[in-house]
Amino acid sequence: MTNQTMNLFEKHKNTLTIAVKALGQRTYYTPYPENPKGYAEDADLKAKNWISATMNNDFKGLKQTGETSWHGEEISPFLQIGVGVRYPIFTVDTLINNATKAQNTWSKTSIEERTAILIESLDRISTRFFDIAYATMHTTGQAFMMSFQASGPHANDRALEAIASGYQELTRYPQNVEWIKNFGKFDLKINKDFKPVAKGVGLVIGCSTFPIWNSVPGLYATLITGNACIVKPHPKAILPIAIVIQELQNVLAENGFDTNTVQLAADSSANPITKQLAENSAVKMVDFTGSSEFGNYIETLPKLTFTEKAGVNSIILDSVNELQPVLANIAFSASLYSGQMCTAPQNIFVSKNGVQTANGIISYEDVVKGIAAAITGLVDNPKAGPGTLGAIQAEATYKRANEAKSLGGVLVLDSKAIKNEEFVDARIATPVVIEVDKTQKEIYNQECFGPILFIVKTDSVENSLELCKTLVMEKGALTCGAYTTNNETKETIATEMNNAFVPVTFNFTGAGFINSHAAFSDFHLTGGNPAGNASFTNTEFVSKRFVWVGNRYM
Amino acid sequence: MTNQTMNLFEKHKNTLTIAVKALGQRTYYTPYPENPKGYAEDADLKAKNWISATMNNDFKGLKQTGETSWHGEEISPFLQIGVGVRYPIFTVDTLINNATKAQNTWSKTSIEERTAILIESLDRISTRFFDIAYATMHTTGQAFMMSFQASGPHANDRALEAIASGYQELTRYPQNVEWIKNFGKFDLKINKDFKPVAKGVGLVIGCSTFPIWNSVPGLYATLITGNACIVKPHPKAILPIAIVIQELQNVLAENGFDTNTVQLAADSSANPITKQLAENSAVKMVDFTGSSEFGNYIETLPKLTFTEKAGVNSIILDSVNELQPVLANIAFSASLYSGQMCTAPQNIFVSKNGVQTANGIISYEDVVKGIAAAITGLVDNPKAGPGTLGAIQAEATYKRANEAKSLGGVLVLDSKAIKNEEFVDARIATPVVIEVDKTQKEIYNQECFGPILFIVKTDSVENSLELCKTLVMEKGALTCGAYTTNNETKETIATEMNNAFVPVTFNFTGAGFINSHAAFSDFHLTGGNPAGNASFTNTEFVSKRFVWVGNRYM
Repeated sequence: MTNQTMNLFEKHKNTLTIAVKALGQRTYYTPYPENPKGYAEDADLKAKNWISATMNNDFKGLKQTGETSWHGEEISPFLQIGVGVRYPIFTVDTLINNATKAQNTWSKTSIEERTAILIESLDRISTRFFDIAYATMHTTGQAFMMSFQASGPHANDRALEAIASGYQELTRYPQNVEWIKNFGKFDLKINKDFKPVAKGVGLVIGCSTFPIWNSVPGLYATLITGNACIVKPHPKAILPIAIVIQELQNVLAENGFDTNTVQLAADSSANPITKQLAENSAVKMVDFTGSSEFGNYIETLPKLTFTEKAGVNSIILDSVNELQPVLANIAFSASLYSGQMCTAPQNIFVSKNGVQTANGIISYEDVVKGIAAAITGLVDNPKAGPGTLGAIQAEATYKRANEAKSLGGVLVLDSKAIKNEEFVDARIATPVVIEVDKTQKEIYNQECFGPILFIVKTDSVENSLELCKTLVMEKGALTCGAYTTNNETKETIATEMNNAFVPVTFNFTGAGFINSHAAFSDFHLTGGNPAGNASFTNTEFVSKRFVWVGNRYM
Repeated sequence: MTNQTMNLFEKHKNTLTIAVKALGQRTYYTPYPENPKGYAEDADLKAKNWISATMNNDFKGLKQTGETSWHGEEISPFLQIGVGVRYPIFTVDTLINNATKAQNTWSKTSIEERTAILIESLDRISTRFFDIAYATMHTTGQAFMMSFQASGPHANDRALEAIASGYQELTRYPQNVEWIKNFGKFDLKINKDFKPVAKGVGLVIGCSTFPIWNSVPGLYATLITGNACIVKPHPKAILPIAIVIQELQNVLAENGFDTNTVQLAADSSANPITKQLAENSAVKMVDFTGSSEFGNYIETLPKLTFTEKAGVNSIILDSVNELQPVLANIAFSASLYSGQMCTAPQNIFVSKNGVQTANGIISYEDVVKGIAAAITGLVDNPKAGPGTLGAIQAEATYKRANEAKSLGGVLVLDSKAIKNEEFVDARIATPVVIEVDKTQKEIYNQECFGPILFIVKTDSVENSLELCKTLVMEKGALTCGAYTTNNETKETIATEMNNAFVPVTFNFTGAGFINSHAAFSDFHLTGGNPAGNASFTNTEFVSKRFVWVGNRYM
């Protein structure tokens, strides 16, 4: 360990200590302020200039050489024109050879060195949060605030969580012990060392909607455990993670490490390299976020896999004190980033007998109308609508939302475009609301990614729970919401859904939304239901990436 | 939690605390004395009476009902006659239904309740150590001392290790926290709970040579994490684990729990039920010890698997201070239980240039002769031979040892029968020693289970290491021994073998043997090489068996 990295470790030791403690406490903790005002005053202006200068140019910031060509196909959902950034394209062989070579040296570094480098990279990334925000906006369609928070501080939180968890597990056992067994007449003394040995090159496969937030947990978990990492982003959302990799490579270079320890593996829709990389025998672990179909394929590979696939999130609406705040909360959760969050609710299960409130029962019909009204109220408000909805990332999602009314059921509220003053060409679709009967499972028992909400009319809350649980066991879910003022019902819902390995969020109103999973407190995914086999960040998420080996010496 | 189980938890709390601490320290710790003299004076006599009364009778000690028939086919390797004990046979449906029902209640118990029940069961089992020793002798062929230690205290140590590790992981997070996020003008307060949810019924598949030691880690890891467990022993080695299950069921019954939380699933060689159980969708996790062929099949099942398969263990003999103690140590390791330990060495890699000692070089030829002489000296000593060798468990192993000389290579020392005064009909085979050239990989690059030792003539220590590492990467290994007085060589061997996920044991002489893996200190298997995907007991061994779920409440 050089003096330089030793100083770097000292610099970040306090952050590490607090982060490790936070992992165990699971109370509120975030080292990176989520409010843009917490950063340099001129940062926003500089970032606007940066994105202007970056668009329509080749991305030259990486320390990777030997590209065979340059390619880019990102389209801004807000501008509906190409972003115009091209990225270096490498052969699979080049990527694998570089990674294998880097693995050799990176795996030999000390845990402290890796920790120092990785936390330092997060600090550097935090100086780019505004650049990252604009890069995220113009690839994913997230509105500015979400782009800033989800790709910036919240992603850094998750990355730090993976580093802290890795550090904790990697230092769980003493490096050396003297083991003494008394045999009466003599002692048998054996010296032992315990070494966490890195498993091998990792591959992180990104998605188009959360290109940083969903990728950095796997990336940092791979790196902290001593493994080199190849990051294969979605070809439509490369720019945000390219910045992250640029900063990581800078810190690696400054401290004398192989910059290929982390590589960007951009590809094109026409010539995808994901399967070639994933199937390569040198790749020992794969982190994946994306479709269930591809995720299921990844899980069949004879290697370590960490997947986040599709799920169908539901809300069970049984009884409330006051209905309006609940409807407003649901409307926001369903509208935020136009339902393109993996944690967005899709199905609202409501009993035909309506919803009990402190002021009597609200009929099922009025609840349906209320949900539609709450959505309309939100999206039609020019101060709230555009910033909540953002834009639709993919043409297919836009089409799905607009064609949802022909899926069957009763159309309650159609999707529409609202005006975004700042981006008049933005691809916008407000949530479509469709009422279905509990028997119409062919409609609601599948993920309809995007701003599509089904209100499912059930016989009772018990029936709602049964349908919700069955759905989760078949299709998986990242979250489940429930509104009930009855303690027994609350307990039953928690028990039943938890037994299907899905967490439940009860009675959220105001500033609490089921969509949000806070680092250092909420596990993102449980790893136990069909929505994915990983969990951000339980111990397995890091401990599977290395092997404990203990040598003995006499 | 009843008063009774609360008292039970208090009773064992100290043991638990010490065990959890020991897990992290990895120094010497064993709560169950390994010396038979540490137990009741009349225990041995009582056990001798017990085994006499037990043989040729039905095993009626279990609290399982609804058997369709009774069956037993164990043969004592010491007597070479049938043990004559019959066990109740159940249909797969009965076993699965019972387990599913028991899972329902057991998964709802508190961690403290489970811990109390399970540690209490170990105490009860310890009162049966002598019974277990005789049961183990007459099914596995282990000599008395190994039967006593491996199936008794050492197995209990490993079981306690799994309980302690489970307790530690299950209590890693607070059950409830208040999460408060400040929004400037107001606080968002969310109550959260964190629940470890049991994954589902476990199946433990036992082997014929270590029917308890290899089964209890998986059994206790399954139980402590809230899962019911079906134990499917090898049809030739049921009696030892039947005692363990009997004691577990007794403690369950006394404390009002479903005794089907753990079930014995005996079967027969003619009508095996292992695959039916393993493939049943209600079974969520499988612990397996046995052949690589069956283990590889188990690993392909779409469920959680923990395997210990075959491996080829090697010793690299480079340089020593004094050769004789080293040869004696190797001879003992190879002869102990006639090489039927999964940690027994099979290949001794020696350079054609011989072995450097403090008194000059000993030629390769003299080393070969020395190994043979050390084995002969051990096995021909009537005070040491029979107690070290024990008997051969399976006819196939006996045949393999006797036919090994026709595998190729040069026969250095043939296998033979020695006299066991106590058991004149014992099936005995001393180690056969065969000299092979490094090029004869078709002979030595495979597991030859039993008392078979290959001395591989290599070009140099570097060549030995290369051959050893390649073998491990292809076939796996549980351990590797090395003798070298050169620090640089030592470091190279450790690094290279560790990178293949195999631990190295250096320069063992005297009372230290590479065969021994001590609970709370040595990981048994790393989980990283082809010899198996599990490790006794790293955190994954328990944490994979449950899922963290966090509910949120407003």
